[in-house]
This record gives sequence, structure tokens and C-alpha cells, in this order.
Amino acid sequence: MEHKEISQAVIGRLPRYFRFLGELKDEGVERISSQELSDIMNVTASQIRQDFNNFGGFGQQGYGYNVEYLYEEIGKILGLDKTHNLIIIGAGNLGQALANYTNFERRGFLFKGIFDCNPALYGKKIRCIEVRPMEEMETFIEDNEIDMAVLTLPKASAVEVAGRLAATGIRGIWNFAHVDLKVPERIQVENVHLSDSLMKLAYNINRSESDNFEGNF
Amino acid sequence: MEHKEISQAVIGRLPRYFRFLGELKDEGVERISSQELSDIMNVTASQIRQDFNNFGGFGQQGYGYNVEYLYEEIGKILGLDKTHNLIIIGAGNLGQALANYTNFERRGFLFKGIFDCNPALYGKKIRCIEVRPMEEMETFIEDNEIDMAVLTLPKASAVEVAGRLAATGIRGIWNFAHVDLKVPERIQVENVHLSDSLMKLAYNINRSESDNFEGNF
Repeated sequence: MEHKEISQAVIGRLPRYFRFLGELKDEGVERISSQELSDIMNVTASQIRQDFNNFGGFGQQGYGYNVEYLYEEIGKILGLDKTHNLIIIGAGNLGQALANYTNFERRGFLFKGIFDCNPALYGKKIRCIEVRPMEEMETFIEDNEIDMAVLTLPKASAVEVAGRLAATGIRGIWNFAHVDLKVPERIQVENVHLSDSLMKLAYNINRSESDNFEGNF
Repeated sequence: MEHKEISQAVIGRLPRYFRFLGELKDEGVERISSQELSDIMNVTASQIRQDFNNFGGFGQQGYGYNVEYLYEEIGKILGLDKTHNLIIIGAGNLGQALANYTNFERRGFLFKGIFDCNPALYGKKIRCIEVRPMEEMETFIEDNEIDMAVLTLPKASAVEVAGRLAATGIRGIWNFAHVDLKVPERIQVENVHLSDSLMKLAYNINRSESDNFEGNF
């Protein structure tokens, strides 16, 4: 596959295509036009065609896309044909919730270890994997070929741990801490800032309330 | 405040401005130029000025922004001067994790109730609030002026519950289920699709690996 620079906006939409195509495949749909996909996904057909053109197009115009082929190709682009070994750092509620989320395994994200700095949690088992002390993190990463770390830690600890991770062979950080991490470029960071998402929802609620008010009176 | 249509991209960036400004305020910084803010936040100064111009600009060119004023104004735009009463639907790991996240309260998001369909969880207390059966949801929403519902449920149940919520006075849904919900327009939906985020990370890891490969050999 060629690696022309593809915008993060396009990449951000790929998992959603992948999800809808997976559902269509499960329903036994074999072919779909960009217009039909557009109707289901609530994006324009031209957006879909533009997005897919970044990867060579995938299908013949007029004839539509082969659902299973498209599903598999997008999966490959997303790297879901490979497996990733991940550890979770922070065994609090959120860390445990993610550790218990078995759907990730189906996509090749293998939960290998979980770490915390609270001795009361050491040895506690989550899906048969015991919580380990933070001191063992670097060795564990090396011994188990870990390439992804999930940070479910308070802000200050996340910054410190990111610094330690930068000295390991880790390739990606899935960051739930409410802070932007500074790491070397070879480490990819994907942030899930839950508060930001909640604030955005609050904004949209408040705005729609004022709109209604202005509109109705 | 005037309500010209502001893009979701701009709105999506507001919480991040709010977070950085809050940190600056805590550090005692009183004024900041768009250039300084740009350096800290890793976005261009012109992007910052453009974003702020959507809301009237906030500050004098050359003199910089008053940090506390800007922080408070953005907070007001986000509706953080108001409180929201929220319930969590789904008392599994993720629901409990969110219920325990006290930072949300500080921003005016008040956790009022948690619901599940598993009788084994009824009466279990999370931050002094007991898990209630799903049948009580509608009455509880009405009696407690609930305006936000957080869905931490499997896909199929989330679709069903969203249908029930559509018949209540709820104004916003914070959706963690891996499905796009169809609700009336007066209900705002903010999705946190964790799998999508994880797949995007996988894509970026794999791409940077192939780039390195192509670059080095």
C-alpha cells in the first residue's frame, strides 16, 4: 500500500465505516452503493467516495462496493489483521473496565498486563491477569513485546509514566488522563479526554435550549 | 450571546482551551498572547484567533488575553456556569468508573442516579447512590429533573433505552455504546466510541512503522 499522507479526519472516520460494514456483512448484505451507505451512515455519498479514494477507491462506480471486501480492506488499513500487545497502567475503575472489555481482543488488541502503584491492588486478578507494581513495568514491556500502553491514571502520574514509557519500545499510548502528553514522535498518542466530550455535550444542550427559546417566544 | 452557527470542530476545541487556561490560571498567569497560547497548546496562533473570533474575540490584539476572564467566558460558553443532573444507565465497570469520577461534579455535572437491569446489582451503592432497576428510569428522570443520561450499555440495550429516553424530558445523551443512536433532534448526543479511538491508534502505529521502514532502508 502506498503511504501518501492521509488526514487524521479521514482516518478518524475509518473505524465508523468498518463498524457499519461489519453490521452489513453480518446481515448478509453483499453489495452496497455509496448512496445506500450514505443513507445508513448519515454522511454524504461524495464524502464516502472521497474518503475511499484516499485508498484507491475500493469499488466500481455504478456497481457499488463488495461489502465483505471493503470490510476486510478497511480492517487491513486499520491494521486489524495484526495483533497488538497492550498493558493498562492504572488499575482503578476505568482501568478495570477497559481490562474487562473483551471486544478489544476480537480486534487483535491483547490485554497482557495491568499495573498500579497501590500495593493494596497487587495480585488482584482481572480476567486472570494480576495487578503488578509499577516498578516492573519496563521489564514487563520488554519481556512481553508490549507495543501499546493504556493510561488510566491521574494527570500528574500520567505525565511521569509517559516519560518512563518514552524510554521503552512502546509504539502507542491510549491516553485517558486529562492532559496532553509530550512523547517522542515515534510514539503515537490517541487521547480520550472524557471531560472534554462531556463539556461539548453540555455546550450543545445549552445552545439548543437557547435556540428553542429564541425560536418559540 | 448571539447564536450564529458555530462549527462542531470549533466547539470540540473549546474544552481544550478551557483546560489549558485553567492550568495557566492555577499557575498564576494573568495575561497571555495568542502566540504564547499557541506554543503551549501546539495549535497555530491564527487558529486560536479565528476560534475566539466566533465568540467576539475576547481580547485586545497586541495586549494579549486576560487569562481568568477568558477562562470564565469559555466556561460560560460551554455552559459550565449551569448545573446538569445526570443518570448513568448501565452499572457495569464503565458505568461505575464514571459514577466514581468526582471531577465531573466540579464542572457542574451532578451524578443523581444509576440504573441497571441486573437484579444482583439493585441496591449496590456507588458514592452513596444505589443502583435502581430500569423500570424506575422514567419516573426518576421526571422527579429529579434529570437532563442528561450516560449510556454504558451493550449496543442492543442502548438502542432500546435511547428509544425510551426519547419519550422523556432528557436533553442530552452521552453515549458509550458502540452504535449510532437515532433520537429526536431536541436531544443532543455525544458519542465516545472507544473501539473507534483504539483502531485509530492502531492505524497510526502501523502507518508510522511502514513509514520508518520505507524511510530507513
